[in-house]
Amino acid sequence: MMLEHLPARVSVYEVGPRDGLQNEARALSVEDRLRLLGALAAAGETRIEAGSFVSPRWIPQLADTDALIRRLDLGGPVSYSALVPNRQGLERALACGIREVAVFLSASESHSQKNLRRSVAEALATYRDLVPAATAAGLRVRGYVSVVWGCPYEGAVPVARVVDIAQALVEMGVYELSLGDTIGVGTPRQTEAILRALLDRIPAGKLAVHLHDTRGTALANALAALGCGIATIDASVGGLGGCPYAPGASGNLATEDLVYMLHGMGIETGIDLGKLVAAGELAQALIGRPLHGKVLQAASGERIRKSQGGADA
Amino acid sequence: MMLEHLPARVSVYEVGPRDGLQNEARALSVEDRLRLLGALAAAGETRIEAGSFVSPRWIPQLADTDALIRRLDLGGPVSYSALVPNRQGLERALACGIREVAVFLSASESHSQKNLRRSVAEALATYRDLVPAATAAGLRVRGYVSVVWGCPYEGAVPVARVVDIAQALVEMGVYELSLGDTIGVGTPRQTEAILRALLDRIPAGKLAVHLHDTRGTALANALAALGCGIATIDASVGGLGGCPYAPGASGNLATEDLVYMLHGMGIETGIDLGKLVAAGELAQALIGRPLHGKVLQAASGERIRKSQGGADA
Repeated sequence: MMLEHLPARVSVYEVGPRDGLQNEARALSVEDRLRLLGALAAAGETRIEAGSFVSPRWIPQLADTDALIRRLDLGGPVSYSALVPNRQGLERALACGIREVAVFLSASESHSQKNLRRSVAEALATYRDLVPAATAAGLRVRGYVSVVWGCPYEGAVPVARVVDIAQALVEMGVYELSLGDTIGVGTPRQTEAILRALLDRIPAGKLAVHLHDTRGTALANALAALGCGIATIDASVGGLGGCPYAPGASGNLATEDLVYMLHGMGIETGIDLGKLVAAGELAQALIGRPLHGKVLQAASGERIRKSQGGADA
Repeated sequence: MMLEHLPARVSVYEVGPRDGLQNEARALSVEDRLRLLGALAAAGETRIEAGSFVSPRWIPQLADTDALIRRLDLGGPVSYSALVPNRQGLERALACGIREVAVFLSASESHSQKNLRRSVAEALATYRDLVPAATAAGLRVRGYVSVVWGCPYEGAVPVARVVDIAQALVEMGVYELSLGDTIGVGTPRQTEAILRALLDRIPAGKLAVHLHDTRGTALANALAALGCGIATIDASVGGLGGCPYAPGASGNLATEDLVYMLHGMGIETGIDLGKLVAAGELAQALIGRPLHGKVLQAASGERIRKSQGGADA
């Protein structure tokens, strides 16, 4: 039986309020971002990336993350996180009292230069000081590695390079490493090959996958990752984040779609799918456009149908 | 290794020109349907459901299937098929020279009554004469079973019932049985359980899956089916067919998404993905709305981006 041995519980890591909103054209107010965070917490999400301490010049959508974090309940059941690119970001994180931060780098040199404006070596050098400083200050630090499944500039990315970067981050002290299929090119056997290579050096409990659904393969890749024992999966409410280059095309894996599949397989998440759909509907209303998440669309369609008195599905 | 033993080659069965078009609001002319069929054949598709001999009163989108079939090359590399609901449909099929037909029924009584306007027993009784008559006349007969993963009226459908219906159809002489997740509620462990039950009685070579992507799980279910040794998968170009009740929501699994995943896994299909995307773009143009297939959207987005001189992906 192919699907016999899968994790009994998956930890869903919500990236909508950060990775999602930073790729949306419309910037939300701190007030609206707080409403969205509240809806996600009400649905039972317990790990939420709430913002970023990257300069608002680069990502205006996530400006005022400090003010936002100060209004959250940081001692409650939800662990909030935010991105820190450098020492200045870490100072901001420490000043507003957040308990978890995330560092990020690319597995390809071209993507690092073009999107993060520094080389992979420069990013690693920065984090070699930053991560121990953050952990010494009592923060948990998560690490992101982008374009692991493929780079828009270089194409295939050698797995050995991903393993080296991953190991370096783990040695610096990140508690978890999220591997990103940033442009959504991955397929399941590739997912398995990448994870097997990493699992030779890093325990499954320290690994997460961050899958984009650009070519529809995100859930199939998630299934392959579950088969490798990975029990932490990133997702974005409603699929928030869209796609950087195609109107209507999709980026992030939608949290509802992931949770629907997991629950259907008897895998627990602690999340209430109905309330999660409500959070997705709120996200749609705030952002002012329909989101691509399929469970969200199906639920909205069902409601429209019922309100019109339709009987046939 | 979870994904080690999968079929080396998958037979893709194209349902866009039938299951797709019959669920579209806009009816295409025979001329336009022929253009779409030509594009699919040019992409290397060799099994295409081209229409239906159901009464045009019920499905006006597929009227004139006889005239359409008469203009196809029925002796070439592509095997065309059409639905036959009854003896009258079979007469039409024989008159126009098609070599393959398909019969269809529901696994749930309510769905059968509401959507096919007859009971499951009535459908089986009809086919008990029809299938042998068709095979005696030299036709290949495919069978469809709908709502195997769940019924919009009854919810869960007992697997034992599906097995009984499937076995009855195979005994009548259908060469292949396509199991439908008609409302797109399936998840991978359920897919595996359904297929295991069927595989106790019917060889894998006689089984196909027909998955809808309404909740985003179609490719993950396809992966589970591959893991059970299923090597025939139905799909619809561009995801043609939409969703009967939700604007923007999706029905059929898009052929390009399936082929993208299969090729990425080293599984052959004989299909040229680039030409298939071109067929999807033609389908979009003919139907007059964007289709939901993700590979199609990503490819279109990429083209828009390049035409605008954008550098960043």
